[in-house]
Amino acid sequence: MNTQVIEKLCQLFGERVRLEHSIRQQFCQAPPGVQLSPPDAVVTVRNEQEIVEVVSLCHEYGVAVIAAGARSSLEGQINAPQGGVCIDCSEMNAIVGINTTDMTATVQPGVTREQLNSHLRETGLFFSVDPGANASMGGMAATRASGTNSVRYGTMAANVKAARWVMADGTVAQIGSRAPKSAMGLDLLAIAVGSEGTLGLFSELDVRLHPVPEAIVAGVCSFASVDDAVQTVASALGQGLSVARIELLDVTAVRACNAYSPSLNLPENPHLFLEFHGDTSTVASSVEGFIDCAHEFGGQLKISHRLEERTALWKARHDAWWAFHAYYKGRKGLATDVCVPLSSLSACISATVADIAASGLDAPLIGHVGDGNFHLLIMLQEGEDESVSIQAFLSRLSSRALSFGGTVSGEHGVGEGKVKWMSAQHGAALDCMRAIKAALDPANILNPGKMYHPRTVDAQ
Amino acid sequence: MNTQVIEKLCQLFGERVRLEHSIRQQFCQAPPGVQLSPPDAVVTVRNEQEIVEVVSLCHEYGVAVIAAGARSSLEGQINAPQGGVCIDCSEMNAIVGINTTDMTATVQPGVTREQLNSHLRETGLFFSVDPGANASMGGMAATRASGTNSVRYGTMAANVKAARWVMADGTVAQIGSRAPKSAMGLDLLAIAVGSEGTLGLFSELDVRLHPVPEAIVAGVCSFASVDDAVQTVASALGQGLSVARIELLDVTAVRACNAYSPSLNLPENPHLFLEFHGDTSTVASSVEGFIDCAHEFGGQLKISHRLEERTALWKARHDAWWAFHAYYKGRKGLATDVCVPLSSLSACISATVADIAASGLDAPLIGHVGDGNFHLLIMLQEGEDESVSIQAFLSRLSSRALSFGGTVSGEHGVGEGKVKWMSAQHGAALDCMRAIKAALDPANILNPGKMYHPRTVDAQ
Repeated sequence: MNTQVIEKLCQLFGERVRLEHSIRQQFCQAPPGVQLSPPDAVVTVRNEQEIVEVVSLCHEYGVAVIAAGARSSLEGQINAPQGGVCIDCSEMNAIVGINTTDMTATVQPGVTREQLNSHLRETGLFFSVDPGANASMGGMAATRASGTNSVRYGTMAANVKAARWVMADGTVAQIGSRAPKSAMGLDLLAIAVGSEGTLGLFSELDVRLHPVPEAIVAGVCSFASVDDAVQTVASALGQGLSVARIELLDVTAVRACNAYSPSLNLPENPHLFLEFHGDTSTVASSVEGFIDCAHEFGGQLKISHRLEERTALWKARHDAWWAFHAYYKGRKGLATDVCVPLSSLSACISATVADIAASGLDAPLIGHVGDGNFHLLIMLQEGEDESVSIQAFLSRLSSRALSFGGTVSGEHGVGEGKVKWMSAQHGAALDCMRAIKAALDPANILNPGKMYHPRTVDAQ
Repeated sequence: MNTQVIEKLCQLFGERVRLEHSIRQQFCQAPPGVQLSPPDAVVTVRNEQEIVEVVSLCHEYGVAVIAAGARSSLEGQINAPQGGVCIDCSEMNAIVGINTTDMTATVQPGVTREQLNSHLRETGLFFSVDPGANASMGGMAATRASGTNSVRYGTMAANVKAARWVMADGTVAQIGSRAPKSAMGLDLLAIAVGSEGTLGLFSELDVRLHPVPEAIVAGVCSFASVDDAVQTVASALGQGLSVARIELLDVTAVRACNAYSPSLNLPENPHLFLEFHGDTSTVASSVEGFIDCAHEFGGQLKISHRLEERTALWKARHDAWWAFHAYYKGRKGLATDVCVPLSSLSACISATVADIAASGLDAPLIGHVGDGNFHLLIMLQEGEDESVSIQAFLSRLSSRALSFGGTVSGEHGVGEGKVKWMSAQHGAALDCMRAIKAALDPANILNPGKMYHPRTVDAQ
């Protein structure tokens, strides 16, 4: 990288510019099969003006800029294949304000979801988006994150109301508003959310909050087959039951979670983990409605009556990653996700499970099935990181999701890991995305080598 | 317009090309203060390929292209200030398919909302977006329409899942998907929806459907003041009550509706018209919850127990436009809307009502207040169309909405009527929208002279 840029950064930010290899290594991440590429420098910023200064400098010198928050992305979103400057936003973690009438929180991008929810504890409101990690608001907005609650409360696309957004030349735009809706022009916020730092950097966000429901009831439901579980989900959603979480675990996942969580002792069958939100009567009738749906497909719902049981249940679900690593000792998990229309979910999962077996893989399956979204954690053997057969399996998984009218990622995003699928998924629409990228970042300094890169599945 | 374009259109479409002034006059619309500008030709298309043919031809010759559906837009969206070709999509009105599991309908752009809901009658599903007019799906998507149900079911932004989209050079892109969510790239669908035909034309849409709720209860609630009504709304929404419609009518609106609807005999006070959706117990508890909220602000809820009463109530609400015209005989209504955060709604309405009185206007106020959105129908005297004082009033209304952190339109959109406010509302973000427009339609053939036009409030 241009030494003048380094010098100027050091003048501006002093010790907050880090050039050591050991630090830079912490600010890159890549999925197996993608080379780890650290940035040339990491700069810790403390306010919007400092983001503007770094971006403006990089714009002047044509240097790559990548924003980092909690660094929990999974597809190489913060990898730096062209080097450049990583802007560490983790210290921009102030909760600027809460508006209880508008049910919004104004936050800096480094605020984490757990931090925000702790802060909200006395307000009767909560922030709903819950990806596995304790991710940052800026990062979650950038990757259009979701999680277990999205079936009821939506993804980040539905939960970011407005933002301040630093564009490629350092201009700051105010996008969106706290008004509940608008018909005045292009919804820039909607392309900013999910653009993975390739069009601009969030310097402040207004996010939606939701009233804490009067009643919350959780439970588990055992099925003879994944298909029975998925059909139950479709039936329950078709009736508009007040389901807030509906998570599938296949047999392998259940076994691993049983082994890891002392309080869990589930029959070794596919399960749904469920949570119902609403007022007391709504929840009661939704639970009854669900019991009827499940009964039709041979499922038995077991309610967790006590708060501790419910907490233990979701802890077990959130600990799945660790459970799988404990179950498959010495192996390394490769997390991936796809998402398909609900009507294709059962067929897509069946074909995938058959493929896992035929490929001789260990890959427990868990899913936000109310969203048609499922995850695999492929437990890699030593040295399988670059394995051709693993990559071939991932290719079949992605192709399969597309053939069912779905998307190659429901929540992990594009990064470097899935960029080669952009053309197959989007066709002419990718040219349209590229035109937008070229218009808003003509020098291609914002997170280059990602979303619009000309790699394809064939050219892999 | 280039005579070669006319000739080629006639070769391709024969009698479906209309050049008569009387026909062309029906394919333009403008709010008071904006000149009516008919297109040079109207072409009725029957399928996507025909849209592609017209757009490609216009692209070749640099001729303007405007899409029309039900022609019910209010801000001059289908006006043709630069002439050109109007593509009449009203005959592309096939319902291509319904997927009850995914709860989606695939429709051509000319399908109207009432047509779709009639078609859905036996399915247990419905389409929720209900602007005043029986608008077309393509037009509603283009203007990001909403209506009375949006407080619960969202605007078109939340109810279009996927689309086929004809871009400026005639390329057709598939945008979005029927998968419930995606994290693969820019959300092009979200900028297509609300772009008012300036970036592309919808040739097919997948829209979301919702389960018809088990129980629907409607009612009216009378208040001593608008402020009491609005505070009740905020309180009810803050508790997560299952409100599907929550409409404000000020005293003037109530008087006019009473006079027009034989079944309506409301006390001459501000009112909320309400509807609750859910299962029987949810609705019952939400109604109870609402009664408590209203009581705190002196409101009395009166439930419409019978279906006929409920139907009459919403008919009265939907007939408001006609009621106002009947009440103010010989006057012409100018409809406008703004939208602000819920926390500012009461203050914004109060200031507006005071301004109406000070300006000596007759302008009943109705609003989708759960969305922070309210409408005025300014009843113009003869010759007031070009009135400086009316325009000054509209300017103050728009400025006021912005000063409260809101938007100059919640649902009517930009068209030609509100384009002069784009800069004041969006600042640097408007440059960003212009860059996207220039990237996707470099020759500026798609609905030119609208959204990105350099008019400003000062230059008016």
